[in-house]
Amino acid sequence: MAEEVKVFGAWGSPFSHRVELALKLKGVPYEFIEEDLANKSSLLLKYNPIHKKIPVLLHNGKPIAESLVILEYIDETWKDNPILPEDPYERAMARFWCKFMDEKCMPALWKAYWIEEKERAKAMEEAFEHLKTLENELKGKFFGGETIGLVDIACNWLAFWIGVIQEVAEIELVNGEKFPILCKWIEEFINYSPVKESLPHRENLLAYLGARREALFASTSKQIIY
Amino acid sequence: MAEEVKVFGAWGSPFSHRVELALKLKGVPYEFIEEDLANKSSLLLKYNPIHKKIPVLLHNGKPIAESLVILEYIDETWKDNPILPEDPYERAMARFWCKFMDEKCMPALWKAYWIEEKERAKAMEEAFEHLKTLENELKGKFFGGETIGLVDIACNWLAFWIGVIQEVAEIELVNGEKFPILCKWIEEFINYSPVKESLPHRENLLAYLGARREALFASTSKQIIY
Repeated sequence: MAEEVKVFGAWGSPFSHRVELALKLKGVPYEFIEEDLANKSSLLLKYNPIHKKIPVLLHNGKPIAESLVILEYIDETWKDNPILPEDPYERAMARFWCKFMDEKCMPALWKAYWIEEKERAKAMEEAFEHLKTLENELKGKFFGGETIGLVDIACNWLAFWIGVIQEVAEIELVNGEKFPILCKWIEEFINYSPVKESLPHRENLLAYLGARREALFASTSKQIIY
Repeated sequence: MAEEVKVFGAWGSPFSHRVELALKLKGVPYEFIEEDLANKSSLLLKYNPIHKKIPVLLHNGKPIAESLVILEYIDETWKDNPILPEDPYERAMARFWCKFMDEKCMPALWKAYWIEEKERAKAMEEAFEHLKTLENELKGKFFGGETIGLVDIACNWLAFWIGVIQEVAEIELVNGEKFPILCKWIEEFINYSPVKESLPHRENLLAYLGARREALFASTSKQIIY
């Protein structure tokens, strides 16, 4: 009997892209179910009742939420083309940098691009520091060494989404002069065939994020949601 | 040659307690190095230059930061008495609940106890919801089943620190009437011998957290740091 592998996601989300990319790297066929984030399906709410968020991986009827948790599950379930290293210390380092991306880097960067101008300088400084930390960490072609690994997948947002956000926000924080190593990694990553095939269309993402930015600045709450 | 296993921690921190408890459950001897959090040692800053926080596990010269990352490292390095289940789906669920504790439950609970009275009602409501979610999740004696596992260790704060915080704040959110299943788990957990032997002295923690609460309410910033 064929396996049931479904991804509940959204085309413009780096978090559901992480899951799709991992499945593609493993060669696991899956069905992608596009969620309307303004009107979430009853299935999504059933499968992720705690956070009510995409992505959810459904594997033979069992749902898993939280992209980093899903990535580890994928690596433990389909063992070909491992995305985590074998050595416990290297595995710990990979997990450390994924947490750093999600808990420090991404919130700081998003804030730097999305915050109102008068408060931007401090946010830009913090984002710059985090990016320098990542720049110094990158030793090989990819964070995973010669092939794409967990940290590269978790940094997909930095590789692709940031470029679009910079264009929308008309702010250039990441460029080859300030971050030559990261920018070289971005080139390698987005041109790596399974990545290239799975990224959203740039023009669509540009329109989508442009509209979200306009809506944010037009609203009174100014609450940044990414 | 004997292994070098050192824990840089603080006696009153649930995060360094997690690491100590995991090592005790595994029967791994270690040296505990008490950090003065107001004046961190140059070794701590060297071993955790990104976050500059405890706990850090030093294993044969290699440092690992972030308590949940350390717990996975411990389980992969010393294989006796596993703290994560074997099955990939159960492992994913354990990781999901640990993230829930750290990212949702703990910040909401801390806020509920520590926020000024006029803003407390909403915070209490959110904390209550998260605790109900946890209460509904607990099916066996422990989150890990018949023995203590990753989620139990990650919930150590709820088992022991909450009781002290409730006494300091004179607020009772967790009790046997509202959360009978969680309170039964708390009893089982804190009386489990490796836990009991590794918890801080209650009176010391009471004095420490009482002083911190007083300092917070006396300061103008009211920034909650836990």
